[in-house]
Amino acid sequence: MSYAVGTTGVVVQNIARAEQSVIDGLAECGVATVHEAQGRKGLLADYLRPIYPGARVAASAVTILAPPCDNWMLHVAIEQLQAGDILVLGTTTPSNAGYFGDLLATSAKARGCKGLIIDAGVRDVRDLQQMDFPVWSKAVHAQGTIKETLGSVNIPVVCAEELINPGDIIVADDDGVCVVRREEAAEVLEKARAREANETAKRARFEAGELGLDIYDMRGRLAEKGLKYV
Amino acid sequence: MSYAVGTTGVVVQNIARAEQSVIDGLAECGVATVHEAQGRKGLLADYLRPIYPGARVAASAVTILAPPCDNWMLHVAIEQLQAGDILVLGTTTPSNAGYFGDLLATSAKARGCKGLIIDAGVRDVRDLQQMDFPVWSKAVHAQGTIKETLGSVNIPVVCAEELINPGDIIVADDDGVCVVRREEAAEVLEKARAREANETAKRARFEAGELGLDIYDMRGRLAEKGLKYV
Amino acid sequence: MSYAVGTTGVVVQNIARAEQSVIDGLAECGVATVHEAQGRKGLLADYLRPIYPGARVAASAVTILAPPCDNWMLHVAIEQLQAGDILVLGTTTPSNAGYFGDLLATSAKARGCKGLIIDAGVRDVRDLQQMDFPVWSKAVHAQGTIKETLGSVNIPVVCAEELINPGDIIVADDDGVCVVRREEAAEVLEKARAREANETAKRARFEAGELGLDIYDMRGRLAEKGLKYV
Amino acid sequence: MSYAVGTTGVVVQNIARAEQSVIDGLAECGVATVHEAQGRKGLLADYLRPIYPGARVAASAVTILAPPCDNWMLHVAIEQLQAGDILVLGTTTPSNAGYFGDLLATSAKARGCKGLIIDAGVRDVRDLQQMDFPVWSKAVHAQGTIKETLGSVNIPVVCAEELINPGDIIVADDDGVCVVRREEAAEVLEKARAREANETAKRARFEAGELGLDIYDMRGRLAEKGLKYV
Amino acid sequence: MSYAVGTTGVVVQNIARAEQSVIDGLAECGVATVHEAQGRKGLLADYLRPIYPGARVAASAVTILAPPCDNWMLHVAIEQLQAGDILVLGTTTPSNAGYFGDLLATSAKARGCKGLIIDAGVRDVRDLQQMDFPVWSKAVHAQGTIKETLGSVNIPVVCAEELINPGDIIVADDDGVCVVRREEAAEVLEKARAREANETAKRARFEAGELGLDIYDMRGRLAEKGLKYV
Amino acid sequence: MSYAVGTTGVVVQNIARAEQSVIDGLAECGVATVHEAQGRKGLLADYLRPIYPGARVAASAVTILAPPCDNWMLHVAIEQLQAGDILVLGTTTPSNAGYFGDLLATSAKARGCKGLIIDAGVRDVRDLQQMDFPVWSKAVHAQGTIKETLGSVNIPVVCAEELINPGDIIVADDDGVCVVRREEAAEVLEKARAREANETAKRARFEAGELGLDIYDMRGRLAEKGLKYV
Repeated sequence: MSYAVGTTGVVVQNIARAEQSVIDGLAECGVATVHEAQGRKGLLADYLRPIYPGARVAASAVTILAPPCDNWMLHVAIEQLQAGDILVLGTTTPSNAGYFGDLLATSAKARGCKGLIIDAGVRDVRDLQQMDFPVWSKAVHAQGTIKETLGSVNIPVVCAEELINPGDIIVADDDGVCVVRREEAAEVLEKARAREANETAKRARFEAGELGLDIYDMRGRLAEKGLKYV
Repeated sequence: MSYAVGTTGVVVQNIARAEQSVIDGLAECGVATVHEAQGRKGLLADYLRPIYPGARVAASAVTILAPPCDNWMLHVAIEQLQAGDILVLGTTTPSNAGYFGDLLATSAKARGCKGLIIDAGVRDVRDLQQMDFPVWSKAVHAQGTIKETLGSVNIPVVCAEELINPGDIIVADDDGVCVVRREEAAEVLEKARAREANETAKRARFEAGELGLDIYDMRGRLAEKGLKYV
Repeated sequence: MSYAVGTTGVVVQNIARAEQSVIDGLAECGVATVHEAQGRKGLLADYLRPIYPGARVAASAVTILAPPCDNWMLHVAIEQLQAGDILVLGTTTPSNAGYFGDLLATSAKARGCKGLIIDAGVRDVRDLQQMDFPVWSKAVHAQGTIKETLGSVNIPVVCAEELINPGDIIVADDDGVCVVRREEAAEVLEKARAREANETAKRARFEAGELGLDIYDMRGRLAEKGLKYV
Repeated sequence: MSYAVGTTGVVVQNIARAEQSVIDGLAECGVATVHEAQGRKGLLADYLRPIYPGARVAASAVTILAPPCDNWMLHVAIEQLQAGDILVLGTTTPSNAGYFGDLLATSAKARGCKGLIIDAGVRDVRDLQQMDFPVWSKAVHAQGTIKETLGSVNIPVVCAEELINPGDIIVADDDGVCVVRREEAAEVLEKARAREANETAKRARFEAGELGLDIYDMRGRLAEKGLKYV
Repeated sequence: MSYAVGTTGVVVQNIARAEQSVIDGLAECGVATVHEAQGRKGLLADYLRPIYPGARVAASAVTILAPPCDNWMLHVAIEQLQAGDILVLGTTTPSNAGYFGDLLATSAKARGCKGLIIDAGVRDVRDLQQMDFPVWSKAVHAQGTIKETLGSVNIPVVCAEELINPGDIIVADDDGVCVVRREEAAEVLEKARAREANETAKRARFEAGELGLDIYDMRGRLAEKGLKYV
Repeated sequence: MSYAVGTTGVVVQNIARAEQSVIDGLAECGVATVHEAQGRKGLLADYLRPIYPGARVAASAVTILAPPCDNWMLHVAIEQLQAGDILVLGTTTPSNAGYFGDLLATSAKARGCKGLIIDAGVRDVRDLQQMDFPVWSKAVHAQGTIKETLGSVNIPVVCAEELINPGDIIVADDDGVCVVRREEAAEVLEKARAREANETAKRARFEAGELGLDIYDMRGRLAEKGLKYV
């Protein structure tokens, strides 16, 4: 059964996940390659930034719809985590409050959670880095939250201007965050690997001093469009 | 005697400060804990960011009201510093100019200053990091400033959307900046320490795999609000 | 011959560059000093940020005017690079797309390019840091670009709210980015060095505890403007 | 059949629409009331603003996914319009370009289109107002667009941070834009009308000088929470 | 008795107000003149905009500190209104939610309230205009709010980056919003009227074609600073 | 003689202007048409907005480079105005201060000035509308300015991310602001008129219900790119 975006008061307990080997493969490829491999779609808004540099993950999304300044649903969602999942939180209206800190991270990590994508704020960022618990967020903000209003867990949510379904694969690194639809994951991985192989070959030619103008045979088309060298 | 916010042309020379042991205690607790302990108030706007990660300070505020793109009052304020103080600068109208750099930092440090909170820009940020002089600012910008118009020193100022009185305690770390009223500092520290003790106990339970749903006994209230598991 | 800002379809192949010793001297001085030395002009907008901290460069600008979300002209520009140049890209309309990544960086580096200033987005930022190829950009974004529309290379462009002529010297470090007109470079360097010498002397006095109020003899003028100590 | 968000190259020709009487009823209720009636969900981001004040519409969404700075799909979408529809455009990556002006409005109006919701820019806004063709947009910008890359028509799109399915009802007025799921429209209308009836009764009491504190019986709960009158 | 900024759970019932004739005089002078007359202080941030053009008011502030997305305190504040007052709402953390609409406006108007200054969002803006109830706000947004958490009424609040004390005079028109301290109001009015008289005389000279360079005798000082005519 | 962007302390007294008939022709065409006619270049950033709707002007630019929060150069520039000119102000560093109000507008209007384009703030906007003196600005802000630092008049300036030379033609209406290089003005007008004629013909076909898909013969190319109708 599927729920409409924006539904509140629901926790979906059983969600399908992609094969672990596919997820791991996508992590190796990284955001830019995966995004290109799936036809330049799936990027979350570039205001999401890692709270510390260097992390690279891929994981199945456990999604959260949360009211503004209210982090109650994070506690509900953590119970739904399986090892290898990542939390993805969207809000019903924009908020920069600090929904998540070291205690919630401790709890999520104890269940094997690989990180958090949050269209809002986080806090205790130094602790999170020491725990090696990566977060991509809209803000770093200590502002406390309340626990008064229901949202939902594991329904489709809009996070950073992109739709995320529960079980979709999230790929995240220093370039940002990308979503891969679960049904397309295997095919996207294949294309991403082909792209990587191709790039490795190209990289060697670039290092040797060849130009993109020649490698990609662009000179004719540029001339045709009217480019003038003066 | 007290001056209205926005008054210009005044330097208040004698300000009261909190006890050093209280200030030091607040530094240990950090921004998120102190903010919660005092009833979720006192956070400065989250656009203030540290110019480098890892610093954590608490100190008594020496406040500055400065005209846009004019850093004259910083020189005046440095004379008012005592060891263990922190400079807090608000402007009469928004500005991202670079009010502060390595020379002023050298001067402030020579008087025992522990850092700067500035609702504007700073420059020479690599030098400031090498000097271990932490700054939380709205911008990094090399734009030079002039010395033409009076502001004030040690009157109440609005900095990053929060009122700061001279002698209030500033707590700042990677999560942002929080102000504690001087009169409330001892009580806030007590509550912050109680909170930390409580969190240490909770952290152990989270690490052991217990859920917030159980630790905080949330299941009943969630059901009452109508949360459905499907 | 000179081209109007906004002209498309032109590649200027021979541009004048400043003397290398002058360029190297400006790099040593850094952005804040150079900006002050040339009369507080030439700073690019402070939304340009380095993708990693610690780089400091000066180099001759090879300029690019690019359509939104279209990085074709970068390939054209790389052919025009000489060792010691830096790429400077402005767009015909604002874009945060990821115009530049590790393959283009490999190509540019093979020609001796010292970095990129881009009024748009970049990707593969971890790779760029590992290659030690510094970039100052408006965004980090993996969004792919197309190759459909002509722009120009080596005409004057507006980048981050400042005009850059081909062959102007770009100085960039953690404080941001500054442009020095080619014709003024030698004179600016001289003034920047004088400024540095002066600052070194001042720094010693500040370290010894002297106040700016006295070093710059400000007390009289402050009193004249009406500053009151209470 | 349903298509994943982000799919390109597809035009869905037959979409279901809600009953006209329901749509008209929602228009009368307006955005704020409809939003409340459906449980405070469905609002698009508040950066969408009407290009002129006073318009109020409800209509069935014909959705468009468009590449950045490329308005080709608008021509494709207009063929899919039925009288009483509204165009809803989301982009594959953010753009403020002027996708839509008086010629496209003339074409859309000739087919009975009631307006445009666009997560990008429009132009010819004076003409659009004279034609009485309302638009809610992120920007007013004359920047021209190209026709090079495929998007899709009538698949689910994210527009201004909210998911819109083809055939969903869009309600828009000076307060902004709200989406009502087609399947929920009749029920939402019923609740909205009940809400309006209730508000009319309340309004009379407020006009007579009664206080919300008494009308909603809030005094006890405020006291219980600890509110002190001094 | 005075309460610290940020205190929650308090309603101050008796506040001092300025003389009505002074308030009325300030309304006639308008924001720009009053701001200049009091030494260029007291302006609220320029992101506050009128929801419709043409209103000009001055009134005594009844202040509200409100939690994010929670408008409970507005009901409490309305009881504290006297005829001729204006509501001024600051939040404990930033929010664009729609705290205020036509029902609350009806209630406030019934008590003689002259408008609202709100560092957040409003809705029903067409109704508010028809009621001639002016609002200066950060956003127009239909997003509903809850009634769960206490704030305060008639304590000093920070609104749009400026401190407002209860009983301070708010002057607002199409140029924005300015606060005048109650104790300074009479003196500010006197200066504002002198300024207006002076401007009337100047306006006649400007209309007759005289230049500011001559009226203000600027030519000598410009030459002294080194201005060159070429 | 020509001056570098950023030069301060210079007033150029004699500037070339385009023919009045050409300028008047461009005003009739409006911003969107002129922008397209000159190859989609010359638009200023879309954050410049008219302070009231309905104005449409074309005029020769008298340019101003102004320091932040300092409007001295406006007085200098007004002396350089000829009837039919427009003032264009860029700043040396970003500022939202209110550089311009009713007195300066009175002075400028007395000299036949047709309006102001300002990359900063203005005030007295109600008076300006009553005077029918149009302004396109970044902000409406009452913040006063000082008169302390030199800028320049009639040198090339960057305004709202675009280069403006003195004597260039500014076209401005509700869609924004566009610059036409003086040397290209006659040719651009010719192309703009051709474009208008073409659009008039197209408009009639659109009104008659023809589709852009057919008028522009797009179906074949869409199919070739792979568009699928389902």
